[in-house]
Amino acid sequence: MTISAKPISGFKEFLPEEQMLFNRMMDVIRRHYELFGFAPLETAAVERNDVLLAKADEENRKVMYGLHILNSANPALVENVKNYSLHFDQTVPLARYVAQNYGKLHFPFRRYQIQKVWRGERPQGGRFREFYQCDIDVIGDESLGLLHDAEMPAVIYGIFSELGIGKFIIRLGNRKIHNGLLEDLGIPLHYNVKRSIAPGPDWDGEIVEDTKNTLTLIDKMYKDGIEETRRAFHDDVGIPEERIDELLSFLSHKDDVHATLKWLAAQNRNDMFALGVSELTEVIDHMQALGIPSNCYGIDFGITRGLDYYTGTVYETTLVNHEAVGSVCSGGRFDDLASTFIDRKLPGVGISIGLTRLFDALQRSGAICTGAHCPTKAVIFNMTPSLRHEYFAMATALRAAGIPTEVYLEDKNINKQTKYAVNKQIPFGIFMDEKRQNRGVCTVRNYSNGDEAEVSLTQLKHHLHQL
Amino acid sequence: MTISAKPISGFKEFLPEEQMLFNRMMDVIRRHYELFGFAPLETAAVERNDVLLAKADEENRKVMYGLHILNSANPALVENVKNYSLHFDQTVPLARYVAQNYGKLHFPFRRYQIQKVWRGERPQGGRFREFYQCDIDVIGDESLGLLHDAEMPAVIYGIFSELGIGKFIIRLGNRKIHNGLLEDLGIPLHYNVKRSIAPGPDWDGEIVEDTKNTLTLIDKMYKDGIEETRRAFHDDVGIPEERIDELLSFLSHKDDVHATLKWLAAQNRNDMFALGVSELTEVIDHMQALGIPSNCYGIDFGITRGLDYYTGTVYETTLVNHEAVGSVCSGGRFDDLASTFIDRKLPGVGISIGLTRLFDALQRSGAICTGAHCPTKAVIFNMTPSLRHEYFAMATALRAAGIPTEVYLEDKNINKQTKYAVNKQIPFGIFMDEKRQNRGVCTVRNYSNGDEAEVSLTQLKHHLHQL
Repeated sequence: MTISAKPISGFKEFLPEEQMLFNRMMDVIRRHYELFGFAPLETAAVERNDVLLAKADEENRKVMYGLHILNSANPALVENVKNYSLHFDQTVPLARYVAQNYGKLHFPFRRYQIQKVWRGERPQGGRFREFYQCDIDVIGDESLGLLHDAEMPAVIYGIFSELGIGKFIIRLGNRKIHNGLLEDLGIPLHYNVKRSIAPGPDWDGEIVEDTKNTLTLIDKMYKDGIEETRRAFHDDVGIPEERIDELLSFLSHKDDVHATLKWLAAQNRNDMFALGVSELTEVIDHMQALGIPSNCYGIDFGITRGLDYYTGTVYETTLVNHEAVGSVCSGGRFDDLASTFIDRKLPGVGISIGLTRLFDALQRSGAICTGAHCPTKAVIFNMTPSLRHEYFAMATALRAAGIPTEVYLEDKNINKQTKYAVNKQIPFGIFMDEKRQNRGVCTVRNYSNGDEAEVSLTQLKHHLHQL
Repeated sequence: MTISAKPISGFKEFLPEEQMLFNRMMDVIRRHYELFGFAPLETAAVERNDVLLAKADEENRKVMYGLHILNSANPALVENVKNYSLHFDQTVPLARYVAQNYGKLHFPFRRYQIQKVWRGERPQGGRFREFYQCDIDVIGDESLGLLHDAEMPAVIYGIFSELGIGKFIIRLGNRKIHNGLLEDLGIPLHYNVKRSIAPGPDWDGEIVEDTKNTLTLIDKMYKDGIEETRRAFHDDVGIPEERIDELLSFLSHKDDVHATLKWLAAQNRNDMFALGVSELTEVIDHMQALGIPSNCYGIDFGITRGLDYYTGTVYETTLVNHEAVGSVCSGGRFDDLASTFIDRKLPGVGISIGLTRLFDALQRSGAICTGAHCPTKAVIFNMTPSLRHEYFAMATALRAAGIPTEVYLEDKNINKQTKYAVNKQIPFGIFMDEKRQNRGVCTVRNYSNGDEAEVSLTQLKHHLHQL
């Protein structure tokens, strides 16, 4: 009786050829984060529940994976772990970490963090229960200049250009513009909504009242459609039709960046609105100096990000050929990272790439195809077992030259050996028998085009380096 | 009222300068694994309990972190997650993965896996509840040649040479030699031992009988001391004194590799013993051909690895200047990876580096000291705010040349700016004001030696590349 080896739904795993590609994408992201001087940071996968709950929103609270000890006879250990859960994002751990190490960090603190996070929700199309987030944030001590907001799109531009997954648009907004606009239109920033919770086996259900951020409705405008947004503003927030028309007309404004900035500057609403316009104008001015081509970004008033957390610049990034995927890199400016944990004003700005989701979407749409199954660039075939020690020496020399090399170590016939190379898409096969050895040469087969070349043993590493 | 940001004991986190070093060590390990053609693999952090328990030993069972949903009103989700736990090693997930994907993998399957694992034990000196394992394994389909056993020490040699943490010794043994020897001396391979479990609040305690592998006693010989080993063989296994003397005399045999192999070959015990000697001789023969210097390895009969799992070659690696750390890289040959999950014989050989423990031990002994706090190689100071766009353009050019660069983006005086560079140990500072700009130059300060050089703006990236 064997035990089933079937996978757990929502926990994505890859075949080696997929993992190779996934890691290559992660390496591109990491390299660009480092090119901008972001330091690596890794926090524990586990946090205390009071830490997580202090900054978790309604949705986060429901998806936390708590821990317990399965079979321990040590009551102290069992008790202790009751208060721990897996983290559901990297922002709460960052806040806790910065508060904890405040005296040892140098500000502005620039860090990147590429880790798995866990959310115990129902796995469905493109949503996972375990997935990678690739985050950068800059955290200031008491203040943080607006130039940092301009740098984030430069990082995004570098990464998505190099990933080569087609045209992308970085959409920018500023929450101060939205907040100023809502205030000007007499629309409240928050509203209450009643919600009934379905009964469970030991539980009669309940009707609860949630306070929602009005910007969430704008954030969902593209997803829910304009009519649902109109309905929600009317029925749930209680706004009269003509005000909604004015709001939706503003939000739907589409023009090139400079025309839009001019259009914004001409509006006379209130200080909050004017401040937002001035921030957005400055950020876009600096983005040009950072070399981001103007066809890679735009102003979009439908971008607000749902969370209460953001206070200024907000970003989303969409792939032009994969609109349905939604935003693949989002973030924004926030004023208060960690006041829950430290009596200190720590503003910041950051972005996050949901790599597992991005990879899955690209793969399902056929935008990426897998190639090699391993890092091996050359395999030395075991043609003549008595020459094994020569094969080992050749492999050691190639590895020392930085060329990932395998010696085929099993006693199989040469057809099985070359099939191994072909199956794993290893680019070069090296053949050496006694005859060739006596002449000081080997044969290099290039599997990408079928070419074969006789190469002097002393020239082998140069030959492979050139290919 | 702020919430405490204190860390959770046993879950190691680093300051940025430590994380930089830790990641550099991990990159060395990864690069060497890839140089030998091992493919990256990552499995979910979570497995079904029946999968984990099927291959967990007594110790593993007690440290499993089970999962539950903290605040969900969805009974199906709550129920479903009850059967999941965090993995405690990477071997059980590998076995499950290979069984699950058997038809899609190409054998011998060579994979590396660098992930965190979790063990809910009491954190104490050098033991962590969350830590990194860096594993490689080669898995054969039905059979796997002995040459693979020789390659493992070549990988270890490459890694520990490049890590530059001092002299190391790869200690080799072969379980067949031990098993043959025990049989020859009439010592059973397993014995039973009674153990009382301490009572808990709701529980009277219990006396249980465990079956132990006799090799575990040999494995603990160095740690427990020869007298405790003698006592355990006598009292627990029930072996007469003279047999114990003969066993301990064999285990304590120390000589150079060739003399030891000769000494082994001269012994006439049984087939199992002879097979072990022949395997060990062959492995060492190939290790020489792979270029491993003979002063980096030795035969040590005190190395058996405790687990039942291993069946042939076994390895441990110790740092000569840090003996107290114990083995920093261990592994061995096994005959049966996954028969619990698939009706197929899958033998293999592998090693594992416990990186978190290694790093912690080196750090505590002062063997490694931290340096830079970030990947940044050059920081362009914000001397003249009106030149910001020129600073941005310079930074973009340096980044395009692969040089991690920051522009100092805050409005602070130049002393505060240079202090930032010094504190974070950024190697180069770049000064450009209007005067310099008019002359087409900037000043590059080398913080490692205090040198300053005036460099033409067009030559800046070449200048930095040379340094």
